[in-house]
Amino acid sequence: MGGDNAPAIEVAGAVAAAREYGIPITLVGDTERLRQELDKHDVRGLDISLHHASEVVGMHDAASDAVRRKKDSSIRVAFELVKSGEADVVVSAGNSGATMAAGMFVLKRLKGIDRPAIAQIFPTLRGKTLVLDVGGNVDCKPIHLVQFAIMGEVYARHVIGVDQPRIGLLSNGEEDSKGNELTRETNSILKNISFEYVGYVEGRDIFNGMVDVVVCDGFVGNVVLKLSEGLADAVGKMLKYEIKRSFLSKLGYLFVHKAFKNFKKKVDYAEYGGAPLLGINGVAMICHGGSNVKAIKNAIHFAHEYARKGVNQRLAEKLETEFVAYMQQRDAVKEAVAG
Amino acid sequence: MGGDNAPAIEVAGAVAAAREYGIPITLVGDTERLRQELDKHDVRGLDISLHHASEVVGMHDAASDAVRRKKDSSIRVAFELVKSGEADVVVSAGNSGATMAAGMFVLKRLKGIDRPAIAQIFPTLRGKTLVLDVGGNVDCKPIHLVQFAIMGEVYARHVIGVDQPRIGLLSNGEEDSKGNELTRETNSILKNISFEYVGYVEGRDIFNGMVDVVVCDGFVGNVVLKLSEGLADAVGKMLKYEIKRSFLSKLGYLFVHKAFKNFKKKVDYAEYGGAPLLGINGVAMICHGGSNVKAIKNAIHFAHEYARKGVNQRLAEKLETEFVAYMQQRDAVKEAVAG
Repeated sequence: MGGDNAPAIEVAGAVAAAREYGIPITLVGDTERLRQELDKHDVRGLDISLHHASEVVGMHDAASDAVRRKKDSSIRVAFELVKSGEADVVVSAGNSGATMAAGMFVLKRLKGIDRPAIAQIFPTLRGKTLVLDVGGNVDCKPIHLVQFAIMGEVYARHVIGVDQPRIGLLSNGEEDSKGNELTRETNSILKNISFEYVGYVEGRDIFNGMVDVVVCDGFVGNVVLKLSEGLADAVGKMLKYEIKRSFLSKLGYLFVHKAFKNFKKKVDYAEYGGAPLLGINGVAMICHGGSNVKAIKNAIHFAHEYARKGVNQRLAEKLETEFVAYMQQRDAVKEAVAG
Repeated sequence: MGGDNAPAIEVAGAVAAAREYGIPITLVGDTERLRQELDKHDVRGLDISLHHASEVVGMHDAASDAVRRKKDSSIRVAFELVKSGEADVVVSAGNSGATMAAGMFVLKRLKGIDRPAIAQIFPTLRGKTLVLDVGGNVDCKPIHLVQFAIMGEVYARHVIGVDQPRIGLLSNGEEDSKGNELTRETNSILKNISFEYVGYVEGRDIFNGMVDVVVCDGFVGNVVLKLSEGLADAVGKMLKYEIKRSFLSKLGYLFVHKAFKNFKKKVDYAEYGGAPLLGINGVAMICHGGSNVKAIKNAIHFAHEYARKGVNQRLAEKLETEFVAYMQQRDAVKEAVAG
């Protein structure tokens, strides 16, 4: 109920996912409004049910306050359904801070994780790069970024299927002398953990495929995410503008428009649908507030695949065991330094 | 002497600027190395002189320490030439933090400015957006961002020629409840200053031309800058890859390649050449460490135009008077609130 165009887009996306992939879906929110939207679609034979929630956390609400106060908010009720076993995954295009807060509040965090992170997959020249956090955690301490790095590494290995994921810390330069207070301390801790940590990476490295995981705080990650979408969009428009300036190139466009379409598909966030929320004891998929029907459909599809394949359970186990092992290394290092 | 490919690229760029625009240039650095490079070019009739400096601040050096320690570094000597009146402008592709530090150290800051900022112009769908700081100031206090906002406003009005520049503060969402500790306090101060402050803007707004000036700290600004370059490059490559996959679209490319070229020219940082350093008592143009010859040539050209038109002097006057006026407003507001 909290998305920019809720619940029309969400309902349409759910109907599309139910029809295309046969996924059973429970719509959580104001059942009267949801029913109105459902009536616009042909839902015969689809396994779509409704579950009432009287409140909504809006985009302007302070996330964790609102989640605590609004006991009957759609996002909180949705997580309750997962907790009680009536649902396997939460998919939301509402306030992402609230989704994170509700996930923590209802499902609790995995052992050793202070703050869950939203992990967004970016298409690159060769493969994919996972960037986290792109959401809620705007003011981070070094230990939070270290946790993001470990979660990203485990996710890249066990879900994306990278053998030895390379991890980079986003900074304003490659040299150790660069960075701000937060990244400098994080950098020195990450060097002591036994995974493929390559050190600082720069903004450009997100798209050249140099690393598999890029770690940053949620403020920077969110700027990165929205800048990328805005720029890919602007680049497409600028190119089209240039092409339409001459008759010959307009003619040429007839031949290349399929390439444009393929390209757009590659960078279109709607293809990925949503970003998984890592670090809570369950699966949640976070979508853009302004998601279109296709994005919602794909997010539900990916979320369903995760749940079906037990990805999240495996991830939770791995996160807990490997996280503890990593952190013990860190303690050992600290003790060695102190001693 | 401090650029990634110094001094070969710098010398070639200087020769090109001297030849194309008749600009008199002093090359500052190891005169033996500079002479070697100059000998590769035909410099007859060009007004190029050499000035010796025995030291170099490298990319790995901690900027302000190195500038203080290395009295005879090329960047410091170059600013000394401006101070003594032997030169009008410094152009550097070296360590940008060092350029900033040397500029402050030798030429001093303008009245009321605690920290100078590097202001980068980004091409957008309609016009240009100035983003500052994109450099040295990685850990900022709210007052620094306020100063960046005022400098950006004055620059947009008096140099870019925007009547009433619209200012935005880069954040992770438009709502006042978003942002981190730094932006939330900055946001509340900026609302009390009598310019066109639109509030928070997001990453995507840099390229849609919604505002004329985007304010952020140097860490975030640097990520934005490098991400944009990386993404524009990746987008071009991805599109070409898609086009070359079929014969028909390869054929079509013959007709659209000029559009691609025009587009590339629009987003190519080399066309802008450098980013002015605002807030010091003089003109300096900061180029990428990895600048090509064209970027150096254009940076020298723009810097020369600034000096020739007295832009910087006017800017300095405006900055000082308007800055003080703005800050007085702020004091008045604070007193009103306190009283």
